[in-house]
Amino acid sequence: MNKLYFNAKQFFFILPVFVILTISIRSFAYEYGSANPQVIETPFAKTTATPHRIPGNMRFRHEMAELLGEKVGPDDSGDVYNAGGLASYYTGPKELFPGKGKFGQLYRFLPVIRWYDPAYYFNPQNFHPGSTVTGEFTSEQCVTCHTAENPGIVTQWRQSKHGTPPEGKEIVGCDRCHGKNHEKLIMPTYTLCGECHEKQLKGHREGERGSHAHAYHLELIDQGCQMEKPAEETTACLACHAIAENRCDGCHTRHRFSVAEARKPTSCGVCHSGPEQYEFEMYMQSYHGMIYQGEGQTWDWTKPLNAKNYVVPTCAYCHMQDGEHNVTKSSTVYTYMGTSLVDRGAYRYKATRDAWVNTCKGCHSPRFARDHLHAMDEAVKLSFTKYREAMLIVTALYNDNLIDPMPIDLAPDSRGHNVFSLMPGKGEMRKYNVSNIERLTYEMLVDIIGAIFKAKAHNAYYSPIYGYWEWAQDRWLLQIKDEASKLKRFAEIEEKLGIKHTAYPFWKHGEYTDMFLGWKRKEWGK
Amino acid sequence: MNKLYFNAKQFFFILPVFVILTISIRSFAYEYGSANPQVIETPFAKTTATPHRIPGNMRFRHEMAELLGEKVGPDDSGDVYNAGGLASYYTGPKELFPGKGKFGQLYRFLPVIRWYDPAYYFNPQNFHPGSTVTGEFTSEQCVTCHTAENPGIVTQWRQSKHGTPPEGKEIVGCDRCHGKNHEKLIMPTYTLCGECHEKQLKGHREGERGSHAHAYHLELIDQGCQMEKPAEETTACLACHAIAENRCDGCHTRHRFSVAEARKPTSCGVCHSGPEQYEFEMYMQSYHGMIYQGEGQTWDWTKPLNAKNYVVPTCAYCHMQDGEHNVTKSSTVYTYMGTSLVDRGAYRYKATRDAWVNTCKGCHSPRFARDHLHAMDEAVKLSFTKYREAMLIVTALYNDNLIDPMPIDLAPDSRGHNVFSLMPGKGEMRKYNVSNIERLTYEMLVDIIGAIFKAKAHNAYYSPIYGYWEWAQDRWLLQIKDEASKLKRFAEIEEKLGIKHTAYPFWKHGEYTDMFLGWKRKEWGK
Amino acid sequence: MNKLYFNAKQFFFILPVFVILTISIRSFAYEYGSANPQVIETPFAKTTATPHRIPGNMRFRHEMAELLGEKVGPDDSGDVYNAGGLASYYTGPKELFPGKGKFGQLYRFLPVIRWYDPAYYFNPQNFHPGSTVTGEFTSEQCVTCHTAENPGIVTQWRQSKHGTPPEGKEIVGCDRCHGKNHEKLIMPTYTLCGECHEKQLKGHREGERGSHAHAYHLELIDQGCQMEKPAEETTACLACHAIAENRCDGCHTRHRFSVAEARKPTSCGVCHSGPEQYEFEMYMQSYHGMIYQGEGQTWDWTKPLNAKNYVVPTCAYCHMQDGEHNVTKSSTVYTYMGTSLVDRGAYRYKATRDAWVNTCKGCHSPRFARDHLHAMDEAVKLSFTKYREAMLIVTALYNDNLIDPMPIDLAPDSRGHNVFSLMPGKGEMRKYNVSNIERLTYEMLVDIIGAIFKAKAHNAYYSPIYGYWEWAQDRWLLQIKDEASKLKRFAEIEEKLGIKHTAYPFWKHGEYTDMFLGWKRKEWGK
Repeated sequence: MNKLYFNAKQFFFILPVFVILTISIRSFAYEYGSANPQVIETPFAKTTATPHRIPGNMRFRHEMAELLGEKVGPDDSGDVYNAGGLASYYTGPKELFPGKGKFGQLYRFLPVIRWYDPAYYFNPQNFHPGSTVTGEFTSEQCVTCHTAENPGIVTQWRQSKHGTPPEGKEIVGCDRCHGKNHEKLIMPTYTLCGECHEKQLKGHREGERGSHAHAYHLELIDQGCQMEKPAEETTACLACHAIAENRCDGCHTRHRFSVAEARKPTSCGVCHSGPEQYEFEMYMQSYHGMIYQGEGQTWDWTKPLNAKNYVVPTCAYCHMQDGEHNVTKSSTVYTYMGTSLVDRGAYRYKATRDAWVNTCKGCHSPRFARDHLHAMDEAVKLSFTKYREAMLIVTALYNDNLIDPMPIDLAPDSRGHNVFSLMPGKGEMRKYNVSNIERLTYEMLVDIIGAIFKAKAHNAYYSPIYGYWEWAQDRWLLQIKDEASKLKRFAEIEEKLGIKHTAYPFWKHGEYTDMFLGWKRKEWGK
Repeated sequence: MNKLYFNAKQFFFILPVFVILTISIRSFAYEYGSANPQVIETPFAKTTATPHRIPGNMRFRHEMAELLGEKVGPDDSGDVYNAGGLASYYTGPKELFPGKGKFGQLYRFLPVIRWYDPAYYFNPQNFHPGSTVTGEFTSEQCVTCHTAENPGIVTQWRQSKHGTPPEGKEIVGCDRCHGKNHEKLIMPTYTLCGECHEKQLKGHREGERGSHAHAYHLELIDQGCQMEKPAEETTACLACHAIAENRCDGCHTRHRFSVAEARKPTSCGVCHSGPEQYEFEMYMQSYHGMIYQGEGQTWDWTKPLNAKNYVVPTCAYCHMQDGEHNVTKSSTVYTYMGTSLVDRGAYRYKATRDAWVNTCKGCHSPRFARDHLHAMDEAVKLSFTKYREAMLIVTALYNDNLIDPMPIDLAPDSRGHNVFSLMPGKGEMRKYNVSNIERLTYEMLVDIIGAIFKAKAHNAYYSPIYGYWEWAQDRWLLQIKDEASKLKRFAEIEEKLGIKHTAYPFWKHGEYTDMFLGWKRKEWGK
Repeated sequence: MNKLYFNAKQFFFILPVFVILTISIRSFAYEYGSANPQVIETPFAKTTATPHRIPGNMRFRHEMAELLGEKVGPDDSGDVYNAGGLASYYTGPKELFPGKGKFGQLYRFLPVIRWYDPAYYFNPQNFHPGSTVTGEFTSEQCVTCHTAENPGIVTQWRQSKHGTPPEGKEIVGCDRCHGKNHEKLIMPTYTLCGECHEKQLKGHREGERGSHAHAYHLELIDQGCQMEKPAEETTACLACHAIAENRCDGCHTRHRFSVAEARKPTSCGVCHSGPEQYEFEMYMQSYHGMIYQGEGQTWDWTKPLNAKNYVVPTCAYCHMQDGEHNVTKSSTVYTYMGTSLVDRGAYRYKATRDAWVNTCKGCHSPRFARDHLHAMDEAVKLSFTKYREAMLIVTALYNDNLIDPMPIDLAPDSRGHNVFSLMPGKGEMRKYNVSNIERLTYEMLVDIIGAIFKAKAHNAYYSPIYGYWEWAQDRWLLQIKDEASKLKRFAEIEEKLGIKHTAYPFWKHGEYTDMFLGWKRKEWGK
């Protein structure tokens, strides 16, 4: 077996040497968290190129490149690195928008943010860079040009009530939402839509914690910014969170702004699907969802959502009754995506439970509805016994210093600390930058218990999906036990041999790991 | 690193002490399997509160609560336990319905059972508790009130042939299925439907093992009750099994009872999806399913299912030809969800194979059909070579006492034994309460070989889904080898060091694990 | 604990003895790779029965059978082996078609190949074996018989433009594509379709690497044959690859040959879904796909795909603009399913990027489109930092001989070598016949980075699917670290104890593993 280049141990030994060397090659290496970071002041200011790399990784890629006969260079060159890109650099996004709120300095955004938080980030000056179009225009004039430029949106607008209003109503033209001056165009937020759609705006803004109204500012700007990940990734989170809070066209997509569209489950499914929010999948697996899938496109969606007009309920049928845009009114006990234990059938929540039974009563007997909701209660509570069984094991391991790695051996979390991720109040629950056994335990709670709750709440327990998640939890529990057993066997053996195991350095550093915000924060002294 | 509370070793040392202490605090702690369990006699009798907890877990939660500053109490309080519910109790369902059959005493049901096995469990006295409605009513009178009470079912009934019969037929009113006396209402089973729909009833009841007719009583009451899990979980299994056997509205949902609805794949997909029965997914991935997805809602589903009326087959097209309700007539060799090895193309099954080719012949040449079915045969047989390769490794580990944990170190199975789960005849195959390597091996057979068979049978092998499962099996095989290697390395090391590894106690006991029926059975001396 | 039969160690000790014994029992045991393999000359020649088994496995199954009281025999007997088929043989397919190309001798096909590569494999003599129909027929005569024989295809043909041509066009009858002589029937390929549909044929054939035109011959015949797996499995790959290249009815399914059908995403989804090509899923998760799902079946699909006619784009809308059948014209930088690193927004690719922005411009502003494509660029590049972080760890392990097993301890790869699967140029990247840590690393690149790229490219990053994959990559990274840590701990312990760990023999041999083509090639001296 040939030595490929240098081994991992050597790599970590030479790491400090390179840290020093690199200070002089700033054009290539920018260490995360310099003492004097250059903050971008305006949306279009170029950042100093901000590669998050640590020198050790550069070294690795240089060696790799030599071995593979590949070039080394910034990966915006357009070169195709066939060897999995091993030999290329990642220099980070060229321009980032400044964050806002208390974590603004720590967290910055990709330019796409301007579409999702337009009131703050959208700069009309930069809307049409290079555009020679100046002056003011009437809606008719807009339509003339844009029929050629963007025929889709004109067609959609014509299909909408804005473009083809009902008898006696006026056209809502392009200028009403975007302004007349082509150099000072507006991207509308809920505020502008609310000028005409008052009731809907009021409902939207009244939503309590857990509703769309708090999806972006509360979750992402105030809390999500604490996430450890770089902007390139959190942008994906941001898209749903920001559009849900800031724009009405998340559900009534432009430029049809259709009520019928928003009534369909697919409208909600864009965001409410996947791990942590399996609502769409659970609904689609239920009798309700299956009947919708089988015939929903033949229904008249212009009709209000109620038991007389629709053979099965949809998302909005239950959660936005009579068009109520405050979804928390037809919600259930809020527990951060269903991850806290609560008996939703407790007497304290009688009003909420009765309201749900009343919703089901359109087609089902109240007792039938209560029996099903009760089965949901018990399933959720039982699922916590598995989680607690796992937590007992993992917490004991933590207590005995047997988790590999222990928190201190990981990159610091977004608060700059190294605390146990599973103990509330002592750290942030998270999916990454944790040990394998912590990840499994996190998933057991957030992904799996959440899925069980949502499966039962949406009647997917007729289907094997609920069964799948119940099984998944069994599997996770036994994997946690299996991992715990291995960790304890290692410890017993090593103790007998006088080996003091310390976590390997790759847990703490690496090309990606070195980009976590915790590192930045540490350097910034926060 | 601080000691959080007490470590796992201490926990298990103090366990016996608490077992004794707890006998005196029965109001909080009910040990699973007392010598004199109080069996519920009638559906609505309250059980003695039956928390399945063991005292050690209580202790854990008390400590946890102190640490977290959370309250301790029954989790039907309505309190939200933000700390993942660590500090709360699970006291079990308040009322359970008695089981029936030979495992009735061991196994009890959540109240929702009454809707799925109504002939046995539905008690009309309790149908409208608190209802002041007494007396007898005509169908017209039912409709008058229930139009206000449950507009959906009245609308659906009017859309049905029962509510709007064809020329010359009479209305089938509410009373025909539910009776006239509001205090003695009936929930219909197949028997009642069969009074008019004789042919369908006959077909349904004639179904052989593996058909709907045996889904509940054979599988769940006689066998499924042997499952180790508590009622809160098996209720999810039960919903599909019971409705498939006992009620016709599993496919022709109330109150439309539509033939058109039942012809659609979505009707079958409610149950036939997910691990162990991926039929819906496999069909949807095939050319047949994709064409259905693309245009199925524009077809006239009132027409009989045949090659002249439909461009692609659906589930019922092949499996319920000419409306035959005995699905075993258009089935294939029954092998318990496809988990046994059999060559379905063997001469012995010529009649079945010819019948399938004849079904395909509506649109395909017989040779084309045979080539595809042959490819299915080979794929299934090959997939067993991977399973056998894994079994060789795992059985050898078992033989050498190297599996961690060995069966004796787990909770007893539902028969009260501790036997190797993978050896037929010596134990029950199962997904939970097993070691990691047994779980992987189980999945390789039941989940993955089953998926390969169903993918090929439904022509999903045009699609990468079959590919996925083939790949999944490779992955499982290498994970099994990897796990085996680790177990053997541990054993060799420990032998050299004179360490005798015994499985850690968390495999045998835990808040959830202590609820397995095997524990109950042991105490009951059965 | 009883000894079940014999343990794994014994099994591997007696293996060589059986290798010798078996040479004399060729009727049962055919060792992979005899010195003088009998190559099949014609499509229907029977092969010598080619069980790939090694004698040791036979022995295992004999023992197993005795223990279980099951019979031993070829598994085409039709017997049902309830014990998971443990006691049965797998004797391999009875007939295989000879391969072609430079790996033809190594690789053979299941008979189903004749439908997917008909120009080469379809033998009209064998089309209707047993058929007594001889002579020449007109299209009208064909229809007469086949209305009874295969009513579906006749109905479909009548619905097509071939069967019911527009005013002034002639019927395209059965004989035009299949010939007149019932003993010399033809199965059409693109060549025959192209006689009328010249433009489409030209486009199809002009497709560059990565297009349908190269899906079969380049990928499967020239390269795929290097795959290690037996024909029973690669047949599943082949179906999509061959039909995409050789036949037009992959998208315009027979016998409707509908343009409307091919315009729908479901047409593409038959192949473009699942790991390695999640295009269908990603599209369906986007706003575009959700709107399509919600209302697509109500649209008029006979209209050309453009922004005036469709409210959202479909696959063909973007990738086959104006019916262009050379999909590489509306593709992006080709990097083998997105698995190589390249900045698709680099100046070098300005023309391609501008063309994409122009496509989006039907409904979106160019800046909006660019911002989203830029977010895709950054996400893809960032995802490679995780892969490189993993590669650093795994390559160091390889360098230190710590991977378990090392390549030399696995079955030889398809080139007959035992090289590290993750180092390009030194071996083939692959999913099977590798160590656990190599598999995880492979998936991180091919399955996960590919999924991230496709999620972003299809705007699924509005949805949590992109989020899921980003999370998946975090999970894979920590699993790789966890595995690396265990391997290093084992090594340190074993070194101290003077144990020299060598990979267990089950990595190299087993009932399935012994079928890999690498073994065959070795024996054939290639």
